[in-house]
Amino acid sequence: MAEAPRIAIDAMGGDEGLAVMLAGAALASAQWPGLRFDLVGDAAAIGAALEAHPQLRAVSDIVDAPETIEGSEKPSQAIRRARTTSMGIAIDAVKQGRAGAAVSAGNTGALMAMAKLALRTMPGIDRPALAALLPSLGDNDFVMLDLGANTECDARNLVEFAIMGAAYSRIALGIAQPRVALLNIGTEDQKGTDEIRDAAAILRDSAHLPMAFGGFIEGDKIARGLTDVVVCDGFSGNISLKTMEGTARFVTDLLRRAFTSSIRSKFGFLISRPATELMRHHLDPDNHNGAVFLGLNGVVVKSHGSASPKGVANAIGVAAKLVSANITQRITEDLACIKADDQQADHQ
Amino acid sequence: MAEAPRIAIDAMGGDEGLAVMLAGAALASAQWPGLRFDLVGDAAAIGAALEAHPQLRAVSDIVDAPETIEGSEKPSQAIRRARTTSMGIAIDAVKQGRAGAAVSAGNTGALMAMAKLALRTMPGIDRPALAALLPSLGDNDFVMLDLGANTECDARNLVEFAIMGAAYSRIALGIAQPRVALLNIGTEDQKGTDEIRDAAAILRDSAHLPMAFGGFIEGDKIARGLTDVVVCDGFSGNISLKTMEGTARFVTDLLRRAFTSSIRSKFGFLISRPATELMRHHLDPDNHNGAVFLGLNGVVVKSHGSASPKGVANAIGVAAKLVSANITQRITEDLACIKADDQQADHQ
Repeated sequence: MAEAPRIAIDAMGGDEGLAVMLAGAALASAQWPGLRFDLVGDAAAIGAALEAHPQLRAVSDIVDAPETIEGSEKPSQAIRRARTTSMGIAIDAVKQGRAGAAVSAGNTGALMAMAKLALRTMPGIDRPALAALLPSLGDNDFVMLDLGANTECDARNLVEFAIMGAAYSRIALGIAQPRVALLNIGTEDQKGTDEIRDAAAILRDSAHLPMAFGGFIEGDKIARGLTDVVVCDGFSGNISLKTMEGTARFVTDLLRRAFTSSIRSKFGFLISRPATELMRHHLDPDNHNGAVFLGLNGVVVKSHGSASPKGVANAIGVAAKLVSANITQRITEDLACIKADDQQADHQ
Repeated sequence: MAEAPRIAIDAMGGDEGLAVMLAGAALASAQWPGLRFDLVGDAAAIGAALEAHPQLRAVSDIVDAPETIEGSEKPSQAIRRARTTSMGIAIDAVKQGRAGAAVSAGNTGALMAMAKLALRTMPGIDRPALAALLPSLGDNDFVMLDLGANTECDARNLVEFAIMGAAYSRIALGIAQPRVALLNIGTEDQKGTDEIRDAAAILRDSAHLPMAFGGFIEGDKIARGLTDVVVCDGFSGNISLKTMEGTARFVTDLLRRAFTSSIRSKFGFLISRPATELMRHHLDPDNHNGAVFLGLNGVVVKSHGSASPKGVANAIGVAAKLVSANITQRITEDLACIKADDQQADHQ
């Protein structure tokens, strides 16, 4: 890391707002010394709240924003308020080059629309995508994208998602040749939509890409440590991600019911508490907070609206890592590999 | 139940084949006395295996089939072997009116293709769908469809799935006005694809349907007891179903690791065993075995390839229930309601 980046924080977004965002930034600041911050929002309120975080105050600038984007606000309305809202001003700090990344826990649709309009899609990328690191039974987390930015996708979109996801995996997890798979309803060549089959054909032919393309993967295999990157359209990705969240909660709710059903089982639970704490840690959404909006000329990270300070700090850490590793540059280089393969094919 | 139905069993399908299918039929026969069976497959092998099940033998006819559909066989190849295979002959028994339903644990794609060709789609239904009962945190299971029969669906398909799923819910769960929701990536009106929004508009306008349409539902809410029927295209449905299976296994695997990580936690686990057994029962796939192929002129049920005898018996029970309640007739009546609404709208 040459110089630790400056991160623009939308201090007003999220279910709990200011207090949680600043506590999260303070945690991140303690964990990664050298990070600097733009804290964007109601300047008076931020100033008052910083009394409790002198260390954070020392590395932060307060940037006043008179307005806040509401959770229910439509993206088409939100983009008109880019200049006056904490979310819009945080993104603008990235556009102006003042900050390396923006982090917000506000309205996802508004954040994506504003970021796309202000930062523009990077050259060679048709559509940006929302990506996250998710827990697996393997040695590493895995990257999944798109998680909801694009309801419908063509083959070219899916190929670009594969390239961006692989770059993210290399940076976030240090995997030199990430294993990439397309989410599908079967593993045989003829399964799925035309778009998925065409994307598979392009990826199979792209020998120069720094990834190992493994074909199709089904929904029950994605978290088993068999792949480092799962690529899908934003509709199936969102359905799959939310089904994961719902099912994990379903099973842990059943478990809670089971363990509180009798005195005997309560006693058993107390004895095995250290073991179940380990499981809780593995499933804790705060450890996987921070969805990245990939494919823009700049880094924008969405923190979950209900994330704790620890979760916010994790999202800030993700943003800092991507800026320091220059993800935009990496994706540009990888896109050049696809072009090289195309040209080679043309010359044959 | 006027007269208990005859069920045609593809005795050769499934990972374990004959032994499990017959043991399952024997269990079903003991549980629902009066059921009669066609046991379709290698007659000599079935005859020999029935030595162990005298009660089942008393209510069964053996129907010889010289061939078996392979698990890897393409549907397009399988349909050419309808007359000579256990799967094809079991379906033909339904077509000829000899059996009320067919149950197979074989190749799903082949089963769907053969059933569609032999039984034909029922009048008023454009595309049949694969439906299953899944566990929820509510008082009842819920019905989900389509689970993979149709990779892409238009609004009319989704509306028909809603009608068929509601009929299934009324019969299988005894719910008079099932709550129906469309799987989507958000609950606001403008979310999702054109197909989903159009389907929602049609369902909202159909006052005569015996269901309560509740709009959109997201992937994390489907198993929370908020809806009785979840409707989706076959691609997202398959992704969601398999993500559920994978995540449930992921969490229980983590739990097993946690509980075997130390002597102390092993001891705690032993003490709370009765509680975790309760949870196992709730998550046991055998209790939810039997995906129904809805929308055909006849009942066809797919048992999971790896189901135990108990799971096979459950699939047979599902088939018997649908035949006795005359699901095809119910769906026809409900389709008439949609037409009535259309005509009323035309007259206004």
